[in-house]
Amino acid sequence: MISTPADPLPSWNDRPTKQGILAFVARVTDETSPDFLPVAERIAVHDNDGTLWPENPMPFQAAFAIDELNRRILTEPELASDPMVQAALAGELAVLLEGEHFDGLMRVLALTHAGMTTDEFRDAVEEWLKSAKHPRFGRPYDALTYQPMQELLRHLRANGFKNFIVSGGGADFMRVWVERVYGIRPEQVVGSAARTEFELREEGPVLTKTLDHLFVNDKEGKPVAIHQSIGRRPIICCGNSDGDHAMLQYTTINNPRPSLGLIVHHTDSEREYAYDCETKSTGRLVQALREAPKRGWIVVDMKQDWNAMFRTE
Amino acid sequence: MISTPADPLPSWNDRPTKQGILAFVARVTDETSPDFLPVAERIAVHDNDGTLWPENPMPFQAAFAIDELNRRILTEPELASDPMVQAALAGELAVLLEGEHFDGLMRVLALTHAGMTTDEFRDAVEEWLKSAKHPRFGRPYDALTYQPMQELLRHLRANGFKNFIVSGGGADFMRVWVERVYGIRPEQVVGSAARTEFELREEGPVLTKTLDHLFVNDKEGKPVAIHQSIGRRPIICCGNSDGDHAMLQYTTINNPRPSLGLIVHHTDSEREYAYDCETKSTGRLVQALREAPKRGWIVVDMKQDWNAMFRTE
Repeated sequence: MISTPADPLPSWNDRPTKQGILAFVARVTDETSPDFLPVAERIAVHDNDGTLWPENPMPFQAAFAIDELNRRILTEPELASDPMVQAALAGELAVLLEGEHFDGLMRVLALTHAGMTTDEFRDAVEEWLKSAKHPRFGRPYDALTYQPMQELLRHLRANGFKNFIVSGGGADFMRVWVERVYGIRPEQVVGSAARTEFELREEGPVLTKTLDHLFVNDKEGKPVAIHQSIGRRPIICCGNSDGDHAMLQYTTINNPRPSLGLIVHHTDSEREYAYDCETKSTGRLVQALREAPKRGWIVVDMKQDWNAMFRTE
Repeated sequence: MISTPADPLPSWNDRPTKQGILAFVARVTDETSPDFLPVAERIAVHDNDGTLWPENPMPFQAAFAIDELNRRILTEPELASDPMVQAALAGELAVLLEGEHFDGLMRVLALTHAGMTTDEFRDAVEEWLKSAKHPRFGRPYDALTYQPMQELLRHLRANGFKNFIVSGGGADFMRVWVERVYGIRPEQVVGSAARTEFELREEGPVLTKTLDHLFVNDKEGKPVAIHQSIGRRPIICCGNSDGDHAMLQYTTINNPRPSLGLIVHHTDSEREYAYDCETKSTGRLVQALREAPKRGWIVVDMKQDWNAMFRTE
């Protein structure tokens, strides 16, 4: 009797999407395959907001920033004179998201993400995660990762892949919880960041967060950051928006190695959200979706492809 | 009969230096030790120039740059009008090393390290490594890594450590050969870098090297880059100069985990070079050496501690 290995992706329905993922992983990891790749070359990059966890009604890091402003304004009322703080506290997300790089959002992030040490920032994020709850699902934000993507991360890891998060989110924000939540080590997180400043204080060395040389890890910035941080082209890229378009191209177009592009398409307004060309948050998806058939990128239809939504274990 | 494990550091003489290294590794990896650390926390950072391979008579990357200038000036004579190019071609290293951040050297690196794609740059470095030879030792540059440090890297890896190179050298320069020479993956290389530009060309996606936002990974920049790229404090730091002083402090001062600082002191003018406060290249070592006893950093006396110099296998 031949024992059948357990299904590594039980939350994925048996459709071409799932078959395509499993076939690709088998193709590059089977030693008898002509497309076999050594472990060191099995690099997978994953967007975070909208790909591994939701980005509605706003990116979770923006929720953190607004909660922080609400907390701090009690003791620092002068913050209220900033029009972007006003917009944030009034929930006028559209104002914050104006401009090519969400300048208002960045301003608010700046106020809540700089001027403290990296340890102080980490403590603030940890404190927030303990109590904050998603407005629609009523659960802690870090309990809302997508179960099917968790299974994909695990399947890739079990097959010798190194998973990297390549997200517009702040590296310091993500590193607080990614290891616990995704099993991804801090050194495998590539995110937006500004330079810190090193100082040897009485109590020891500290790094203070500044806004200098802010790097926004989005769009064309993503392949740039992949090159800078990873130093080789990935062979798997998972994203969900036009912010991931450039890294999908970088991963798959004329890559001398076999490669896989995957787009999570939000089609399930009942269990999660449905959006692509129009969105009230980040995550606009038009160009990458249009290019997907030509490039052979797998498009995940959340409603059809996933039989579970959020992490269950 | 109890089998004795083979000596993991045969090129190190049996002195307190070697004993200190072995004792530290045992202390954090022995599950019965109160200082045991899980694998994920075993992060070791290593400077490259002067720590893993020589930096005399000049950093090897500078030799590459000068050889490149000599090659290119044949077809691009206009380069000769740049005073820093003239200094480089005349071997006036002191001129190139003037200024706090070796501005002249940086200018030459800029001319030879920008304006091409990352693939073109990689090819140039590979081509150079095939033919260039060290002026004193007459061997290819990448055959000159220190055998004792190779053994240390291997011993750490065998004990669950993740080795990172954290060097003032260019990340793109080092990544061409670090995997082959040290067994360190490109994503574990943290170096100086400027931003690249992403472009989707006819032949596929390319990244063009620029000089924008040049980050010099030296001195206080090293802990900054460690935080940005690794996202947690190392527990082992190996360096050889005041350029590594800040990352030695960051690794060892008030680190809640056990930690080890190690300084390679160049004391062997016969087999290699002898220098500390005075050097004709990079690698000045004064402040870190002075602070070593207070901090408990291990100082390697090359002449006394190493019974072999360059990689032999």
